[in-house]
Amino acid sequence: MALNMKQQQAGLSRKAARSVSSRAPVVVRAVAAPVAPAAEAEAKKAYGVFRLSYDTQNEDASLTRSWKKTVKVAVTGASGNIANHLLFMLASGEVYGKDQPIALQLLGSERSKEALEGVAMELEDSLYPLLREVSIGTDPYEVFGDADWALMIGAKPRGPGMERADLLQQNGEIFQVQGRALNESASRNCKVLVVGNPCNTNALIAMENAPNIPRKNFHALTRLDENRAKCQLALKSGKFYTSVSRMAIWGNHSTTQVPDFVNARIGGLPAPDVIRDMKWFREEFTPKVALRGGALIKKWGRSSAASTAVSVADAIRALVVPTAPGDCFSTGVISDGNPYGVREGLIFSFPCRSKGDGDYEICDNFIVDEWLRAKIRASEDELQKEKECVSHLIGMMGGSCALRGAEDTTVPGEN
Amino acid sequence: MALNMKQQQAGLSRKAARSVSSRAPVVVRAVAAPVAPAAEAEAKKAYGVFRLSYDTQNEDASLTRSWKKTVKVAVTGASGNIANHLLFMLASGEVYGKDQPIALQLLGSERSKEALEGVAMELEDSLYPLLREVSIGTDPYEVFGDADWALMIGAKPRGPGMERADLLQQNGEIFQVQGRALNESASRNCKVLVVGNPCNTNALIAMENAPNIPRKNFHALTRLDENRAKCQLALKSGKFYTSVSRMAIWGNHSTTQVPDFVNARIGGLPAPDVIRDMKWFREEFTPKVALRGGALIKKWGRSSAASTAVSVADAIRALVVPTAPGDCFSTGVISDGNPYGVREGLIFSFPCRSKGDGDYEICDNFIVDEWLRAKIRASEDELQKEKECVSHLIGMMGGSCALRGAEDTTVPGEN
Repeated sequence: MALNMKQQQAGLSRKAARSVSSRAPVVVRAVAAPVAPAAEAEAKKAYGVFRLSYDTQNEDASLTRSWKKTVKVAVTGASGNIANHLLFMLASGEVYGKDQPIALQLLGSERSKEALEGVAMELEDSLYPLLREVSIGTDPYEVFGDADWALMIGAKPRGPGMERADLLQQNGEIFQVQGRALNESASRNCKVLVVGNPCNTNALIAMENAPNIPRKNFHALTRLDENRAKCQLALKSGKFYTSVSRMAIWGNHSTTQVPDFVNARIGGLPAPDVIRDMKWFREEFTPKVALRGGALIKKWGRSSAASTAVSVADAIRALVVPTAPGDCFSTGVISDGNPYGVREGLIFSFPCRSKGDGDYEICDNFIVDEWLRAKIRASEDELQKEKECVSHLIGMMGGSCALRGAEDTTVPGEN
Repeated sequence: MALNMKQQQAGLSRKAARSVSSRAPVVVRAVAAPVAPAAEAEAKKAYGVFRLSYDTQNEDASLTRSWKKTVKVAVTGASGNIANHLLFMLASGEVYGKDQPIALQLLGSERSKEALEGVAMELEDSLYPLLREVSIGTDPYEVFGDADWALMIGAKPRGPGMERADLLQQNGEIFQVQGRALNESASRNCKVLVVGNPCNTNALIAMENAPNIPRKNFHALTRLDENRAKCQLALKSGKFYTSVSRMAIWGNHSTTQVPDFVNARIGGLPAPDVIRDMKWFREEFTPKVALRGGALIKKWGRSSAASTAVSVADAIRALVVPTAPGDCFSTGVISDGNPYGVREGLIFSFPCRSKGDGDYEICDNFIVDEWLRAKIRASEDELQKEKECVSHLIGMMGGSCALRGAEDTTVPGEN
């Protein structure tokens, strides 16, 4: 990505520019310009926004006394529909907690700069007490600065006639750049959640390009699939969705995903003991989950931004709140050392647990029967092929792309 | 509004139809059809959705033990952009509280029926524990059934070349129908919040057509104006927005609105003692607030649905959570018996306080200086004219419409 205009004008290297800006930690806000010298105003214009530092000293101390240190959350694709829901959920305190002040660092494209300002203005107008800073930008090196979390929603949508292989390629390049930016700018323990599709392989690319950040910290979103699977089990069983637990999604966030009815529980009982219909489980359940986005887009005329944002919030909360005893959540993580024999070096969705400290472990007590194993293997094979298609982006000796001309397994409603 | 197809086919009167359906209180959900007899399936199809009763008996009692009785919230314009944010905020428990289960009753138009199903499906997929029921429909008499709250977001947008007087007329007819439906179907103590513009006069029309519901229960949304005003005072003073209090909006939700800097406090001090710039207050502050929506639409390319939804959530919370000592919130309410000499019989925005019981009182200790009084009078005059334009919709002897050809005072970005 190019240096931004201010830095280019000043003839600064990226590194130098960053160190300058780190000496002046100001809040970038999309607001009317305060009176300022013309040159200063010009420099500010380079960002398309104006800067202002808030005095928070005269706040009621009872509001902030028990608060934690501010968490810095970078969000890409910040002017898009999913972010438009998610940012307000983050700012409200619903996700990171009511004692967790938050700074939002929003990344957009040159094309969306004005829209980003609009988002920042709407966040301001919402007066969320916990939202302490909003900054916006188009340079990932800058926007990811010191980020504790990076929520990578932005990805190129698939154009007409584009194959999944092309999508892998185009988005792969974005995630290579962004991975390098994370590596250089983000907090050393930054948690990264990739939403932009194909999210597993995008997460892999970002991870391989960010060797300074632990591999365990990279996630691909399969929580929406988990939520949809829980909903389908609730609908089929006639039980309320709160009674469904241990709902694992295995593998790739594509139509080869494996929603695991074998280990799922409904009201504490194994799902197959409640829904006594193996044909339904084997033939209908998985497509219902995988094709839900497509069904929604038909009804709704647009993709499911709100419920996707909710699932991102759920995925974050799963890491910052301890998992209930006996339960699990699904997330795509590095398969290194997994207890299920899945090939290493893939971002693969597993059932996981967390102590609520931002870290997790893969649950080791799920039963993988023959049926599950075959399905998991197929998703694993697909992920391996995706990996080979992007080998040049992750420093591997490549690999031809066996996915060219292959069946499209993109989850409908998401390209 | 027409009877729905099912009722028409059955040759039932509206009343009879309602009493039939009240004997079968089932949850209408936008889901795949369970196996059902053909006739039953046909009847269900009339709604475009399928029905299912959930068994919630096997839920963990620790989840629900301390919960209150379910609150029924009807929302109009439910497939629109504002609702698409608001419904998820309501379902999350952020608005009514974490111990308050909720039933959402969604009203859409014939044209938006499929989109309504899409919204219901996304709400399902979000697995909010507090969200116990989602029903959808196109008949306000049915959708408002037993509603404890009616959030009236839906309104006709202004077509090209349409005047505010035309908008008053067209939307007035909708609010006449919906007011009658509230009167017949909703809870006798239903709280009504009108968001659809022109919201003050729409609220007046609904109120006058619902004599069985207390006049005090009708609100027009001016909370977005209040939030925007707080934000502007924060920006101008360089203090964080949490330090701004007693920010009253007086009058109409139009460009004649009066954001009250005289009584506002910043960090506990009178705003004019902090921002020592009367010219700014008198000439720039009000337009900055009133034209914020227009500024946003220019940046963002679409109207500010998210921050509007946040302000609706704030407006509801203001009535269900006690107001902080010394503070106030703004809401458009009936002017009957107000302590400021505003003409009775108008829905007028005042500074109010609440004990958190859903009720409120108008604050009586605001200083109205000469400048404020003149501005308030102008907004009052406008509301009186709006009232005369819709006199035939509220059972008044009419009145010609003096607003025909008048300057357009619609808040930009909101038509």
